[in-house]
Amino acid sequence: MAVKRSGRRPGQPTTRELILKTARQAFAASGYSATSLRGIARAAGVDPGLVVHYFGTKDNLFARALGLPLSPTALIDQLLAAGLDGLGERLVRTFVSIWDDPSTRAPLLALIRSAVSHEESAASVRQFIGEEMAGRLAALLGGPDAHLRATAVGAQLFGLALLRYILQLEPLASTDPDQLAKTVGPAIQRYLTG
Amino acid sequence: MAVKRSGRRPGQPTTRELILKTARQAFAASGYSATSLRGIARAAGVDPGLVVHYFGTKDNLFARALGLPLSPTALIDQLLAAGLDGLGERLVRTFVSIWDDPSTRAPLLALIRSAVSHEESAASVRQFIGEEMAGRLAALLGGPDAHLRATAVGAQLFGLALLRYILQLEPLASTDPDQLAKTVGPAIQRYLTG
Repeated sequence: MAVKRSGRRPGQPTTRELILKTARQAFAASGYSATSLRGIARAAGVDPGLVVHYFGTKDNLFARALGLPLSPTALIDQLLAAGLDGLGERLVRTFVSIWDDPSTRAPLLALIRSAVSHEESAASVRQFIGEEMAGRLAALLGGPDAHLRATAVGAQLFGLALLRYILQLEPLASTDPDQLAKTVGPAIQRYLTG
Repeated sequence: MAVKRSGRRPGQPTTRELILKTARQAFAASGYSATSLRGIARAAGVDPGLVVHYFGTKDNLFARALGLPLSPTALIDQLLAAGLDGLGERLVRTFVSIWDDPSTRAPLLALIRSAVSHEESAASVRQFIGEEMAGRLAALLGGPDAHLRATAVGAQLFGLALLRYILQLEPLASTDPDQLAKTVGPAIQRYLTG
């Protein structure tokens, strides 16, 4: 689809690119929680409506700013909507399919590497996982230790990413997704339904 | 205890320090598997018997070279010797007690940060976890998928380290070790005894 770019000089960033760049700086400087779409719009010198028009929600803008093709929250909502039954296996299947895809693996690897080395990145990742991932799962789980169990699920999934994609420990690194889901799914299910 | 250091000029490294320095360089250059005590002795220009005298085994020298007070393999052997029953909880308790101790946490954090960013470190860590940690557990588990299950246990434990100590995600970061063992232990037990 051809996009009309009237008035834009070659080499000048589009409004969308300007918002992404500003968002990256804002999330890095203030973390995920303290950054708002309105604040990003102000810093970029654009109307807040434009930010919403291009990116919809904060979690989506965060994901796009990191180079991800979509926000994980939509996927998580979809997975959780089908209920707790079999959720362990479904979580592993979806998580592994996202990481197995080189186009999403690359920005995720960069994100984890950055979070492990820099506290500013760690803060954003911590807040995003806490609010948008573990928070959604905890709400579904309920009970006094719902948040602990939800973050323990996160520990299993991100540990899988650490050993399979970063350290590339065998046989974890080359096991096919189906076998992986059947092995890791039931352990995660233990946190979900006991 | 006063140690007699005859013939050593001030500022000159002791033989023990020389071996540690040489070992760090050897593990970094060749990884854990391809490095031998004999090769380290040769590179340091000392008798192989001296390396054994100071450090005993390769896994112990590796741990000491990283600044750890002892090799995790002795602890693992101790844990595994008590059998599979309740091993999930015992693994979490021991893993968390090592990471909760600031003097062991510091070198472990440095190791994980280095492994996540540098392939040479990743190779050593991958080989050490594979041979000395997951390998020992897999031998106890038995069965065709023993190694996969053993590395999945590793993924849960190192994921816990990633989220509790590096990303510091709540409530995982501040939950007391006992509660943590009771929550994560049964999920790990799922890999061990189904």
